[in-house]
Amino acid sequence: MSQAQVGIIMGSQSDLKIMSEAAEILEELQVKFELTIVSAHRTPHRMIDYAESARSRGIKAIIAGAGGAAHLPGMVASLTTLPVIGVPVKSRNSIDGWDSILSILQMPGGIPVATVALDGAKNAGILAAEMIGAFDELVAENLKKYKEGLKTKVEDTAKKIEKDGYKGNQIGFTN
Amino acid sequence: MSQAQVGIIMGSQSDLKIMSEAAEILEELQVKFELTIVSAHRTPHRMIDYAESARSRGIKAIIAGAGGAAHLPGMVASLTTLPVIGVPVKSRNSIDGWDSILSILQMPGGIPVATVALDGAKNAGILAAEMIGAFDELVAENLKKYKEGLKTKVEDTAKKIEKDGYKGNQIGFTN
Amino acid sequence: MSQAQVGIIMGSQSDLKIMSEAAEILEELQVKFELTIVSAHRTPHRMIDYAESARSRGIKAIIAGAGGAAHLPGMVASLTTLPVIGVPVKSRNSIDGWDSILSILQMPGGIPVATVALDGAKNAGILAAEMIGAFDELVAENLKKYKEGLKTKVEDTAKKIEKDGYKGNQIGFTN
Amino acid sequence: MSQAQVGIIMGSQSDLKIMSEAAEILEELQVKFELTIVSAHRTPHRMIDYAESARSRGIKAIIAGAGGAAHLPGMVASLTTLPVIGVPVKSRNSIDGWDSILSILQMPGGIPVATVALDGAKNAGILAAEMIGAFDELVAENLKKYKEGLKTKVEDTAKKIEKDGYKGNQIGFTN
Amino acid sequence: MSQAQVGIIMGSQSDLKIMSEAAEILEELQVKFELTIVSAHRTPHRMIDYAESARSRGIKAIIAGAGGAAHLPGMVASLTTLPVIGVPVKSRNSIDGWDSILSILQMPGGIPVATVALDGAKNAGILAAEMIGAFDELVAENLKKYKEGLKTKVEDTAKKIEKDGYKGNQIGFTN
Amino acid sequence: MSQAQVGIIMGSQSDLKIMSEAAEILEELQVKFELTIVSAHRTPHRMIDYAESARSRGIKAIIAGAGGAAHLPGMVASLTTLPVIGVPVKSRNSIDGWDSILSILQMPGGIPVATVALDGAKNAGILAAEMIGAFDELVAENLKKYKEGLKTKVEDTAKKIEKDGYKGNQIGFTN
Amino acid sequence: MSQAQVGIIMGSQSDLKIMSEAAEILEELQVKFELTIVSAHRTPHRMIDYAESARSRGIKAIIAGAGGAAHLPGMVASLTTLPVIGVPVKSRNSIDGWDSILSILQMPGGIPVATVALDGAKNAGILAAEMIGAFDELVAENLKKYKEGLKTKVEDTAKKIEKDGYKGNQIGFTN
Amino acid sequence: MSQAQVGIIMGSQSDLKIMSEAAEILEELQVKFELTIVSAHRTPHRMIDYAESARSRGIKAIIAGAGGAAHLPGMVASLTTLPVIGVPVKSRNSIDGWDSILSILQMPGGIPVATVALDGAKNAGILAAEMIGAFDELVAENLKKYKEGLKTKVEDTAKKIEKDGYKGNQIGFTN
Repeated sequence: MSQAQVGIIMGSQSDLKIMSEAAEILEELQVKFELTIVSAHRTPHRMIDYAESARSRGIKAIIAGAGGAAHLPGMVASLTTLPVIGVPVKSRNSIDGWDSILSILQMPGGIPVATVALDGAKNAGILAAEMIGAFDELVAENLKKYKEGLKTKVEDTAKKIEKDGYKGNQIGFTN
Repeated sequence: MSQAQVGIIMGSQSDLKIMSEAAEILEELQVKFELTIVSAHRTPHRMIDYAESARSRGIKAIIAGAGGAAHLPGMVASLTTLPVIGVPVKSRNSIDGWDSILSILQMPGGIPVATVALDGAKNAGILAAEMIGAFDELVAENLKKYKEGLKTKVEDTAKKIEKDGYKGNQIGFTN
Repeated sequence: MSQAQVGIIMGSQSDLKIMSEAAEILEELQVKFELTIVSAHRTPHRMIDYAESARSRGIKAIIAGAGGAAHLPGMVASLTTLPVIGVPVKSRNSIDGWDSILSILQMPGGIPVATVALDGAKNAGILAAEMIGAFDELVAENLKKYKEGLKTKVEDTAKKIEKDGYKGNQIGFTN
Repeated sequence: MSQAQVGIIMGSQSDLKIMSEAAEILEELQVKFELTIVSAHRTPHRMIDYAESARSRGIKAIIAGAGGAAHLPGMVASLTTLPVIGVPVKSRNSIDGWDSILSILQMPGGIPVATVALDGAKNAGILAAEMIGAFDELVAENLKKYKEGLKTKVEDTAKKIEKDGYKGNQIGFTN
Repeated sequence: MSQAQVGIIMGSQSDLKIMSEAAEILEELQVKFELTIVSAHRTPHRMIDYAESARSRGIKAIIAGAGGAAHLPGMVASLTTLPVIGVPVKSRNSIDGWDSILSILQMPGGIPVATVALDGAKNAGILAAEMIGAFDELVAENLKKYKEGLKTKVEDTAKKIEKDGYKGNQIGFTN
Repeated sequence: MSQAQVGIIMGSQSDLKIMSEAAEILEELQVKFELTIVSAHRTPHRMIDYAESARSRGIKAIIAGAGGAAHLPGMVASLTTLPVIGVPVKSRNSIDGWDSILSILQMPGGIPVATVALDGAKNAGILAAEMIGAFDELVAENLKKYKEGLKTKVEDTAKKIEKDGYKGNQIGFTN
Repeated sequence: MSQAQVGIIMGSQSDLKIMSEAAEILEELQVKFELTIVSAHRTPHRMIDYAESARSRGIKAIIAGAGGAAHLPGMVASLTTLPVIGVPVKSRNSIDGWDSILSILQMPGGIPVATVALDGAKNAGILAAEMIGAFDELVAENLKKYKEGLKTKVEDTAKKIEKDGYKGNQIGFTN
Repeated sequence: MSQAQVGIIMGSQSDLKIMSEAAEILEELQVKFELTIVSAHRTPHRMIDYAESARSRGIKAIIAGAGGAAHLPGMVASLTTLPVIGVPVKSRNSIDGWDSILSILQMPGGIPVATVALDGAKNAGILAAEMIGAFDELVAENLKKYKEGLKTKVEDTAKKIEKDGYKGNQIGFTN
């Protein structure tokens, strides 16, 4: 039976709206994952169990999202040798996201967290896939197709604007 | 034999220069304390042991100092019902202290940390003494004397400047 | 007759929406409190009376909320030896709350204010209860139950998500 | 006997290095002043006496300097109907001056403080002189001469650079 | 015939919503004023005429409001010896008001601007009245009454809350 | 046949709402332009083609708009000797625009980007016209008329307010 | 012959002092790497060659360090499906590192960069090793030993302080 | 006789250390320039004369540097139709340069300033040359050579590091 390679965790259910974007892109890239709630501050022992057992359960990368004084990614990173990807979530009482970003990003020497953009759960999923794709040609191939899709979408939009004009009257660019 | 009422912990020895100011003021205010190194990221299990045993060891308040993505105060707060005072330390790679402040201050609902000013270990010590002094007249008396000392020092300086002038020629103020 | 142990004050009625969260959690934790309006800038003499009489009226901790150039917590702290908890309120003209936070947090040596998160009145209430709970087993017990409730809520949500899926198709985590 | 028209106060002796620039420019502009130490947090009652008596002692404007969570200017403003000029001082533990600036500038409706630049004590002195100069032709005349001096100094430097070159080889500008 | 003592100017009509608060409070305090649009960037020569003629027209203080890279207050201050009060306006494309604040507050030595809080036009009006009130007993008396009104309003609200409770069940405070 | 002198590019279609303001003002100023989508991150090779061919296609200035970690303006600047004007766009997940501004503005020595205000596409268009107008009298004349229009609009508004009053009762200013 | 698994690149030689910490820790963890200079702005074509050839050369992760408007990590990420770790370097003209951080962290959807702390090259090296260690037991074992070393060092320091005192007189903590 | 095409101005002599970098690079690129001191706040009339006469004197672009509340670039831009390049200077009392940057960058619609990085006078010079080079093949050629020099320098450094190692033992990269 197939096994999750990426663990997606978050501090509370309110983070799910953002964090589900990591799950969706992993599905699209055909990477198996698990997703659950683990709170550093409300369930510290559950967090320890999760982090310390992840490697032996076959997980290759952990994505942890949290807002405000966001300790989940850093604490999980202190409890495993797996790469931990931190997603700063702009939660309700966050100060424009600065608290989430800085408390995930500014980890001390020895305990890195791979931080992505504010509310960047989708990129966290892609990053996890890239880590796996470095060792797995199938995932790498899916990533390549995904990136080509991004490119094609830009080119199509560009063509349309060059043809129809930003409102019909600019001179078209042909590269 | 007398027992520590305040626990002072910090993430690394490099915080000791700042954090010893908490110890010094507690000595001056005649509050017993203990002081040691506990790292959230390097010794997570030691942190749990420390936080979960503090109450039963007679501790009434914990002062925790840390820099950068400072998770020690918040994680200790998640593991005890004692009040935890957080000291944001402006460590070497800190971004002007903002990371330390925000990752200590912006705790989620349910898990407060009593945050003091950047590098404010002295005030953390006074705050711990105030918590104890609310229930202990002797400590309250020491705090009162300490505050009167602050007042007297300002008044003496003021008198000197009013007498001698900021460089000898301003009109003195008499209140 | 029972007596308030915590004083909750705020600069204006517009802070009540936030500050009433401190009152609500204190009720839940069975800690007696009083609540009123005291403005540092509009009623400075009333503020002095409040702060200087609090200790003799049996108050063990003062929670003070204010926005913008928030002077109430710090000024009250200068007038009592009780611990003062400051709640930075994100008021209408506040600059994203930075002004409230910094003018409460960055107190000079000698006059601490126990600062909580922006709009963190609930945590201020819990922090006051923790200060009292350090000396009162009943309150400590209530705090312990409250924290267990937080944990149970996370675990229940986690179970539900693991069972039903973030949208029905992720691999469940079992720790 | 001549009487002070401007009161210069500051929270501690460590502010004197900056705040004496206010005194110096007032001397140059021939405005009488008094200068002393008044701490909002260490001597709150002295602050009240100072602020409430200032008007009757003939003071026309108060310059108050303070650092960190700087409450002196705002609290003095709450206790008098005189204009209060606030000087944010970049003190030792200040966070790049942001705390001083915001806790002086962001006063609530009803209680203004005329805030000048960080460490801008010289400008505070000039501003006080401008307030007096609006009603006193002699002071206005001194201000006019002072401003002309600033202009002349720029013009002289410009002439020199235009003549000698920034290192001898640029084309001179003649306006 | 009565003459304006305060000049209120602003960079564009979009600032009028905020800046009219300065006019309203000056009316309440019975200080004569004039109000118009003067743009530093769109009508630089009009700005020079306004600033250079203000003193001779009897103006005692100028209130200038502007947003973004707000040059109006500082440029007017460079062209007159009258005190200039700057109101940072949080305009549409402003970055949370920081641009307005810093480009008004951080004036170089020699050219002060009395800066008030973001969108603090009401306080700008009060500050102008205080400058005039330092020399005019009637205005001073009006300011005193205004401040007493602020105090009474707080006391009345406090009494109501103490009587009716924040929701009917807290212990009332009596000072 | 007439040829574009200004190239307007942007990272995605979502920037078009802002960036079309550059196109509109260039039309008003009678400067020919082209407009299309070029993404640094999604179509890096298309970006290189665009930047390296711009000069030979007759372009005199490139306007590049992007949000978040905005690399388009700087990368285009590294690939051409034409002046590049960068427009920081406040995109959906931008942190109040700070990320867009800093990643466009803070270019290393050797590779300048002419940065305009956040969402300042209109000013980018005017700036491009000014660059061309320095060598083209017709465009310069159009710019002069445009600036006179700005002035006239302020003067007309001022006259109206002086006549009708901010609500009918202030003393009019006549310069 | 053994082959590099990690590519370390940086924008200029001045970043080498910081970036060599990534190399040193990779040596300690026995991960093969290559290190060179690649500038996004000064050698854009070299950057493309480097990024597009990395995967086929056997690289599993790229570490890219840059300061100011730091485009190297994000541009490399746009040109490969390998995971890219970005190190914000606090370069000479950087604004306290904010520009470096935001222009690396805030990447748009589709193109993640795994950002570490300001000047966090050491952590970048550990993160790269963790990515490889997820698939390579030897590297995982080295990481485990490294983390145990961090723990032992904290415990030894703690024991020493508990024995000798922070200055010889505090009560020792024994957990 | 040859004539200046670029005007370099700055608010005070203290800006000359930074601003002379603009002059030096213009010399290297063989673009004629003039350089002098013009202060918006100390010599407003001189500023007007300078800005209004620049075009007729043959100037094609103006570089204006200033610190703190930096009004010179924006005010000059309001007085000419020439492109104005603003250099935010990190002056002595600047708040880490944020005041300089925001008061130059955030210009209102209609009056652009081409802002470069903090202390980025060198890039201002290059940008001015690029504006001229868009219409002048010789200058364009000089810019091309300058950029090739930047590239060669990176490549040479890279070769050296690849050959000698960051300390002699890394695996060389060959692209």
